[in-house]
Amino acid sequence: MTTKYVLDESRIPTSWVNLMADLPGEPLPPLNPGTGQPAGPEDLTPIFPMGLIEQEVSTESEVEIPDEVREIYKLWRPTPLIRAHRLERELDTPAHIYYKYEGVSPAGSHKPNSAVAQAYYNKEAGIRKLVTETGAGQWGSALSLACRMFGLECEVFMVGVSYDQKPYRRAMIETWGGSVHRSPTDLTDAGRSQASHPTGSLGIAISEAVEVAAKSDDTNYALGSVLNHVCLHQTVIGQESIAAMEMAGEYPDVVVGCVGGGSNFAGLIYPFVRANLRQGKTTRFLGAEPAACPTLTRGTYAYDFGDTVGMTPLMPMYTLGHDFVPAPLHAGGLRYHGDAPSLCALVKEGIVEATAVAQTAAFEAAVRFASCEGIIPGPEPAHAIKATIDEALAAKEAGEERVILLGLSGHGHFDMAAYAAYHAGELEDLEFSEAEMQDALDRLPEAPSIA
Amino acid sequence: MTTKYVLDESRIPTSWVNLMADLPGEPLPPLNPGTGQPAGPEDLTPIFPMGLIEQEVSTESEVEIPDEVREIYKLWRPTPLIRAHRLERELDTPAHIYYKYEGVSPAGSHKPNSAVAQAYYNKEAGIRKLVTETGAGQWGSALSLACRMFGLECEVFMVGVSYDQKPYRRAMIETWGGSVHRSPTDLTDAGRSQASHPTGSLGIAISEAVEVAAKSDDTNYALGSVLNHVCLHQTVIGQESIAAMEMAGEYPDVVVGCVGGGSNFAGLIYPFVRANLRQGKTTRFLGAEPAACPTLTRGTYAYDFGDTVGMTPLMPMYTLGHDFVPAPLHAGGLRYHGDAPSLCALVKEGIVEATAVAQTAAFEAAVRFASCEGIIPGPEPAHAIKATIDEALAAKEAGEERVILLGLSGHGHFDMAAYAAYHAGELEDLEFSEAEMQDALDRLPEAPSIA
Repeated sequence: MTTKYVLDESRIPTSWVNLMADLPGEPLPPLNPGTGQPAGPEDLTPIFPMGLIEQEVSTESEVEIPDEVREIYKLWRPTPLIRAHRLERELDTPAHIYYKYEGVSPAGSHKPNSAVAQAYYNKEAGIRKLVTETGAGQWGSALSLACRMFGLECEVFMVGVSYDQKPYRRAMIETWGGSVHRSPTDLTDAGRSQASHPTGSLGIAISEAVEVAAKSDDTNYALGSVLNHVCLHQTVIGQESIAAMEMAGEYPDVVVGCVGGGSNFAGLIYPFVRANLRQGKTTRFLGAEPAACPTLTRGTYAYDFGDTVGMTPLMPMYTLGHDFVPAPLHAGGLRYHGDAPSLCALVKEGIVEATAVAQTAAFEAAVRFASCEGIIPGPEPAHAIKATIDEALAAKEAGEERVILLGLSGHGHFDMAAYAAYHAGELEDLEFSEAEMQDALDRLPEAPSIA
Repeated sequence: MTTKYVLDESRIPTSWVNLMADLPGEPLPPLNPGTGQPAGPEDLTPIFPMGLIEQEVSTESEVEIPDEVREIYKLWRPTPLIRAHRLERELDTPAHIYYKYEGVSPAGSHKPNSAVAQAYYNKEAGIRKLVTETGAGQWGSALSLACRMFGLECEVFMVGVSYDQKPYRRAMIETWGGSVHRSPTDLTDAGRSQASHPTGSLGIAISEAVEVAAKSDDTNYALGSVLNHVCLHQTVIGQESIAAMEMAGEYPDVVVGCVGGGSNFAGLIYPFVRANLRQGKTTRFLGAEPAACPTLTRGTYAYDFGDTVGMTPLMPMYTLGHDFVPAPLHAGGLRYHGDAPSLCALVKEGIVEATAVAQTAAFEAAVRFASCEGIIPGPEPAHAIKATIDEALAAKEAGEERVILLGLSGHGHFDMAAYAAYHAGELEDLEFSEAEMQDALDRLPEAPSIA
């Protein structure tokens, strides 16, 4: 009985999958926030290097991975695909459950897949320093790691509530040489304008980092999710999953992942979505998001800013409103008002399904998973585990031998305070009322309707 | 350029290596603390199951690994062997540095290799609950995980200073269903007698756990290091290392690991020591211990208790004295007054070398390693990394293409407070004076001299 499927190092993908090439019609363009006109590469050059801007707008179906990036991927990739025999037995389900585990990276999540690529292209462009935001601390630590690998400086604006909850993530960022600020700070105009939201949010932290990057020539900004080039880099996950499932002699009926900004889920599913489009496969795709930040399930499909203050281009996406400040739930990586436009378009088209999971249900599922499979999951993929268990139980109900692929995007070693709170019965299920949600939506920027 | 060597799951070892069979002469027996006579299996039956007692005294050269144990090993084994290309480049050394990384286990260290085996044999013997001590928290979390896998209860006495420094290790133990006490407690006679040492020590925590196990029929004790059967279980590390280095086409000139109780280092080197004895290989073996708890480098070779209060059999080993309370250094897993008798015998014979490493030098080496290889090491293997870097620099000095194998026994995700202290310049190098050390040695129990 085989448990782990690990590809040989030589089978780390040699190119990233650009799903944009396979989608019918033209994607909705981002808009310049000043003019309302489609944003071009020139809108992005103050904060991104040309190598990444080209990827952002590319319509090629494959983008070659530079050798320098693959060499660093080799430190932890290919990541294992694991058959959850013990969880299947616990659920007494005929479903076959596999999970692709990205927690083996030095930063403990999928985030370095893009961080390493972004650091590489910035280094190539002669940039000296990268600035970014981080929610749960996973992106910040991943970028700090990647910058260290390429000799770049790294400065991180960390969402206030995560900064307080996760001091050890900060120490991790510092161990790789990065510096960390608690956002909102008084170092930026954006931060000072949000002093009344001391818990912070990803949107605020993004505004701060973009401001710092825009003001300096040798400093760029790096975003850990949402944008096309970030989703692109993450497709190593899905490509390896396809190859490893081939080793197992199976193909997924459903692929499940968690959605914060969307890059982990996009990276997992886009190679499978392409197989649906090109080869007529019929795999279902299920994104799990927190009930306390329900972008895909309760948001509005509209043009909105990527940040809180309104510095970024307007992006077509499901949004809760750019000044929506999510409750301080423990899955910090899922606290974002929007989602990747490319992923939102697939939801809009009905190609991707979404479900909202309450925090306590996610932790309950995570503890059950840990009891069977050993690994203690991050709070973010815990949401996907809950959805996976529901799928497996539905398969049992239906008497189907359903093949489920779960994206286990990271471990929970830096989230044990949240587990302690769960064990102590102190976790709350926070939800927003319709009125509260409408309040933020009333402040959407003026832009063409896309709903 | 290959970086990672990962064996196929089918190559998880099918038996453990018992080095006892290959050592010349009879090993010195443990002694009953009451009678001073050699301790037999009957001295151990109150706290250990017969399956483990048989392994403790076995002279067979191989012990078969039960299928049930191998099935659980499959969740993370074989662990990767990684060529430290980037560290070699940083040191500009002709040495080839490989590290065997045990941090991929769910508990983050090598400890589950023995915990799973011990839980299995106790379950087979009809035991309901295991009690143990833990220093850094790694053994306690490993045993909690293993007990969960076999449906056993788990109770952990955690060294006071680690309990305070590592709340997230506690949450991890609890996530797998175990319960945790801060040792010394007032739950046991042993704990109450040591109330004047509030920082605790491994020796005190062992006394407490043994006391609880000895008082109950369906409860046994589990030790995470020192004993023959624990070292035996860990030999999966060395066996996999030999096979993976074969994939790399190399064989180590020197093997380096950290030594606390000795099981990680023993598990790494015993298969190689056997190859020295049987096949005439000439590999050197170097154990790195903390300068603040320098058992092998400054201790006395004598019979001593394994615990502080004097409940265990007397064991022949290097010791700092059973009531030596080590300074609260951050490498909690290395704070033990003695070392595995089997390992001590090899040091006594000159087959194994030892070196003492100061705490700040260990962290400096760990940060350097993390900057090159990504992985943030636990404070314990950080000591071995410092010794490895010294070996690699010596090879450079000598102009030798030396092949070095480093045992990277675990990650440092639960030790980031120590890294934060290092970054803040707050770590101190604690050492004991000769007078302080002599003080504890003056209280060695009466027993035949073996020095």
